Amino acid sequence: MNDLLLRACRRESVERPPVWMMRQAGRCLPEYRVLRAKASFLTLLTDPALATEATLLPVNRLGVDAAILFSDILVIPRAMGMELRVEEGVGPWFPAPLRSAADLERLRDPVPEEELAFVLQAIGHTRRALEGGVPLIGFAGGPWTLASYMIEGRGSQTFSQAKRLLVENPALAHALLARLAATVGRFLRAQVTAGAQVLQIFESSAGALGPSDFRAFSLPYLSASVRLAREQGGDTPVIVFAPGAGWALEEVARETGADVVGIDWRTDGEEARRRLAPFEVAAQGNFDPSWLYAPPEIIQTRVREMLRAFEGPGYVANLGHGILPDTPVEHVQTFVEAVKRNGGSFLSR
Amino acid sequence: MNDLLLRACRRESVERPPVWMMRQAGRCLPEYRVLRAKASFLTLLTDPALATEATLLPVNRLGVDAAILFSDILVIPRAMGMELRVEEGVGPWFPAPLRSAADLERLRDPVPEEELAFVLQAIGHTRRALEGGVPLIGFAGGPWTLASYMIEGRGSQTFSQAKRLLVENPALAHALLARLAATVGRFLRAQVTAGAQVLQIFESSAGALGPSDFRAFSLPYLSASVRLAREQGGDTPVIVFAPGAGWALEEVARETGADVVGIDWRTDGEEARRRLAPFEVAAQGNFDPSWLYAPPEIIQTRVREMLRAFEGPGYVANLGHGILPDTPVEHVQTFVEAVKRNGGSFLSR
Repeated sequence: MNDLLLRACRRESVERPPVWMMRQAGRCLPEYRVLRAKASFLTLLTDPALATEATLLPVNRLGVDAAILFSDILVIPRAMGMELRVEEGVGPWFPAPLRSAADLERLRDPVPEEELAFVLQAIGHTRRALEGGVPLIGFAGGPWTLASYMIEGRGSQTFSQAKRLLVENPALAHALLARLAATVGRFLRAQVTAGAQVLQIFESSAGALGPSDFRAFSLPYLSASVRLAREQGGDTPVIVFAPGAGWALEEVARETGADVVGIDWRTDGEEARRRLAPFEVAAQGNFDPSWLYAPPEIIQTRVREMLRAFEGPGYVANLGHGILPDTPVEHVQTFVEAVKRNGGSFLSR
Repeated sequence: MNDLLLRACRRESVERPPVWMMRQAGRCLPEYRVLRAKASFLTLLTDPALATEATLLPVNRLGVDAAILFSDILVIPRAMGMELRVEEGVGPWFPAPLRSAADLERLRDPVPEEELAFVLQAIGHTRRALEGGVPLIGFAGGPWTLASYMIEGRGSQTFSQAKRLLVENPALAHALLARLAATVGRFLRAQVTAGAQVLQIFESSAGALGPSDFRAFSLPYLSASVRLAREQGGDTPVIVFAPGAGWALEEVARETGADVVGIDWRTDGEEARRRLAPFEVAAQGNFDPSWLYAPPEIIQTRVREMLRAFEGPGYVANLGHGILPDTPVEHVQTFVEAVKRNGGSFLSR
């Protein structure tokens, strides 16, 4: 098996850094668009056979060193009882957002093996299909990120409704976040049991919070999620990615229990490496997804700069955010190949 | 005259820090909504008498220590020849975005006294109406921010079209940015001649750029804008605000020629103060606008925390971003009063 990712997460020696890409299982691949022409996004998500197919596409096409399950962070709120709709061009949204204690009370605490069985089945299918080729990453949204979507009802630039709730009714916010952390932890643990070999928590709305709010409403619940995921999950590596909160790398490394800290493209790679050095964590990132629009020579140069910035063991090459939908697939291939070709030269520190 | 703002920008001694708020001349005031019921946003912008009226509203209602001209950063692209439309709920947008060298060639380099005369007239009217009560702030968008809107056609979460142009055609991007910097500089200089007593440059899309892109496509053009604005503008204080690029405070302080560096709400106030200490600049910010949703006692507590974080001379109390539209006006008043009441106790360092 290609266990580069597992070894890099544990900061063991590797021949070259592993490479995969956030949102690799999706919209930039022509094969994915063929799949989507036959089935809606929600069908892909909830049908284990189709989710498996989507998960495998980038492994075959791009030669990445890991598969990440084709899924969506909003499966948790949906399993809690919130109606999830997906519309072309709008993305997933909740027609009845959570705004009150009564709304929270109506939600259930899902048992992953029941309400989220389709995800666990897709993990099982994918593991069998991968035949030990590359490891499979399972994931969940961070509690604050899930809460912010549940309160807003959809993505937002300011998350002003969600942040309004934090100051108007912090007790309700904490009650919601505690329930979400418990569910996230249980769900991740179930994913490990089903076969996930690495876990990533996407705290995608981290950048909507300033330092004191991040410390109050994100960090403790990320920590609780990781702790719960580990209760039986043993030594499965956990990646925590909190884009937009580059100032918080040290706190994420020290307090969440992450094995790997995700670095976004807004953060300088060398600086991130230096700031994380005192902690026993690996780093993952941080190529600017928009740089994949550049001509191949430029992509190659910038990949080498990234590898140099992150040199040494304990590094997972990745983007610093998800692939942008209209990225040319040849450029994505250039990125993967450039890491594979050059990665071996940047291992000593 | 209340010259607290002028003295704070120059780091002179003050009795208490001055306070004003980004987007104070607008949507959170009931009086503004009355005005908007009579005239469209575009009419308010372009009619000097109405723009003056909107500018004065918060001075009278909220007792802030400065007026900021009611206007919009997109008046520059409009004056360059781009059609600007404003639709309810969508905000201002350009139906024909800039995408090619030919698009750029079609644009003119506006003479502020002609194509932007309505802004300069509004400044003259406002100065007379203020009768020396509080100083008047003029402003412009930063070159990269204007470019990003001209390329996208509208606001964006990822600014992926604009960033695509940076890597696909950097020569075109630099040509556009150079023309914008020249226009921004000329426009700011004309605003000083018309009566503006302080200038602010809003580099609102700063956070769309990672460190190397910010250094290539934002910082040099901010510097050029400030330098050109100063050519005859003399000692008029300049505030540079680059939200989402909190990592770059030192570079903004050192390289743009700003007298005051704006601090966004994502950046810890004490840390910002410490990082700016080696430079001869004042700081402005950085109350999280969403905290104005909180009950008044909480607003007061957090204002005191902000004043403590920024204590010492050379500080302008403000939000860390624009006021959110649905902010209760009583809470905005609480914010202003809390600065005025407590500010005097946090002047020593």
